[in-house]
Amino acid sequence: MPLSKRLSEKKLIEQIRRLALGGRSVSTGIGDDCAVLRVPPGHDLLVTTDFTIENVHFRRNWHPPELVGRRCLTRGLSDIAAMGGEPRAVFLSLAVAVAVPQKWVDRFLKGLLDLAKEFKVPLAGGDTAESPAGIQADIVVVGSVPKGKAVLRSGAKAGEQIYVTGDLGGSAAALARLAESKPMGAEYSKYLRPQARIAVGQSLRRRGLASAMIDVSDGLSTDLEHICQESRVGAEIEAEAIPRAQIGRGNKERGNKERGKKERGKKELAKKLIALDFALHGGDDYELLFTSAAVVPAQVAGVRVTRIGRTTRSAGMRLIGADGKRQPLLAAGWEHFA
Amino acid sequence: MPLSKRLSEKKLIEQIRRLALGGRSVSTGIGDDCAVLRVPPGHDLLVTTDFTIENVHFRRNWHPPELVGRRCLTRGLSDIAAMGGEPRAVFLSLAVAVAVPQKWVDRFLKGLLDLAKEFKVPLAGGDTAESPAGIQADIVVVGSVPKGKAVLRSGAKAGEQIYVTGDLGGSAAALARLAESKPMGAEYSKYLRPQARIAVGQSLRRRGLASAMIDVSDGLSTDLEHICQESRVGAEIEAEAIPRAQIGRGNKERGNKERGKKERGKKELAKKLIALDFALHGGDDYELLFTSAAVVPAQVAGVRVTRIGRTTRSAGMRLIGADGKRQPLLAAGWEHFA
Repeated sequence: MPLSKRLSEKKLIEQIRRLALGGRSVSTGIGDDCAVLRVPPGHDLLVTTDFTIENVHFRRNWHPPELVGRRCLTRGLSDIAAMGGEPRAVFLSLAVAVAVPQKWVDRFLKGLLDLAKEFKVPLAGGDTAESPAGIQADIVVVGSVPKGKAVLRSGAKAGEQIYVTGDLGGSAAALARLAESKPMGAEYSKYLRPQARIAVGQSLRRRGLASAMIDVSDGLSTDLEHICQESRVGAEIEAEAIPRAQIGRGNKERGNKERGKKERGKKELAKKLIALDFALHGGDDYELLFTSAAVVPAQVAGVRVTRIGRTTRSAGMRLIGADGKRQPLLAAGWEHFA
Repeated sequence: MPLSKRLSEKKLIEQIRRLALGGRSVSTGIGDDCAVLRVPPGHDLLVTTDFTIENVHFRRNWHPPELVGRRCLTRGLSDIAAMGGEPRAVFLSLAVAVAVPQKWVDRFLKGLLDLAKEFKVPLAGGDTAESPAGIQADIVVVGSVPKGKAVLRSGAKAGEQIYVTGDLGGSAAALARLAESKPMGAEYSKYLRPQARIAVGQSLRRRGLASAMIDVSDGLSTDLEHICQESRVGAEIEAEAIPRAQIGRGNKERGNKERGKKERGKKELAKKLIALDFALHGGDDYELLFTSAAVVPAQVAGVRVTRIGRTTRSAGMRLIGADGKRQPLLAAGWEHFA
């Protein structure tokens, strides 16, 4: 249906154009061959692209469209955060099959643009196309950072401390809950709305507190391995130090833990072990993982920061258990819908 | 198959990384959260994104993979050309279904990267994912242009001349030939390798010869309408002046035209009418369409430039026939596989 395709594409472009914000960095936005952006003098440019694909990164019957849109942009913003940068403009390439209801697209765009507004970053362009099946969105975020000051993955030295912001594993645990078709309480669903740590990343960069940094998008073990490989160091992580997301009944019952401890002992333990796996290998938390030669405050830009281990001269990653025993830690990133 | 997915993604990322070029503008390329780019002082940034989707923009049984990769990048480069800009870095987000042979991906990447090399522009990043079906590629090209000098679609004034580079309609005619399952001679297949007019765009911008500019990606009528709308002018195009691509037998037989002219008269005419339609509405030629208050040389940067009409105060577009009669010209962009 070529004509309807053309019309619906045109409609989508106009819809995005109407919804798009102007912005200080964008001198020409949607409606020309390219967007024209101003980069502040003395700044480097940051560019990141992230695909969000139906049935790979989200499922239409699991994820509300607003959250898909929000997360689509969060992925890009989080990459800017991991460089200590400032987001300046967003580009969205969106391919949608004819069978996808317009309402879904409306709500997806609302989620994405509401978040763009929160971060005061304009939608400056993109592309639209008809997809043969499902939804494919590619988000591009352009940012800036003072020249030469981007925090890379390659800056860690042996003997530094390893830190992480916020909690880990919440997103994976919420997804596992969805996969079991169990009801989602508010304790879970907040983990479907991860926050890009832009302010934390900038603060760490300005204060020189991060020697290497990455966002936890593929899971702690996988993303830590990226830092290790790029920096040519090893790492030791203390299992007990990892800040795990606390969700579901386990959370509510914390106060009553002493009561019935004996009866539920085994079950509680099993629960915790599962949570550690989520925290070690679960993705999509978008917290910042970084190394530092300095002592980092317990809070940065209002977000809790936890020391979880240290870099080592000897290659490879090791997990130190509660009993002090070391075992190899292998990168085993969370698989969506595994 | 989560594990194989992870492995093939990893392999794809490593493949792209190995193939990617370094470049003067890229201080950190593939292998960090963002690419870090240097923009020359006193320059604005240009950003364009273009989706290339299987069965929408190409068909695997029609288009050799190298040409798909080449064209994928040409679309982005052509947008930079239409601003009078210089391409600086390329980002590729590529989603491929498991069923797509690795050989196809290899050849696609070769086509894309060979062209990147021709234009000395590095592949600086991107994303890879498993697609549920087929191939989806989003290309991002980042370029630069001296501050405030980007040639926009909105700069045309009434009473200016309208020009176009090269020939029009060749790509659409070649596609029509493919759709009829007819053999493709070299005269056709060259139109599957359109050229991004980077040098022409820059020359026009430097010499102040283009008041408004766009690349002919959706077809002359559609792209001219974009200039008219953004510049708030109308346009008159002379049908006879449009430089049509010359392909197939019609071309070879030109010398013998006089012989048998009477016998073939009607057929020849029909052929020509079809060609005009392709030249008016066919897309994917990636020639530059621009307006100018100056007299533009017949060749710019080695490429033929043809005057095809003028902008008018009265809105709308009109086509002037060989008989001098005006008829309304409606935007009717070429539909892929219509």
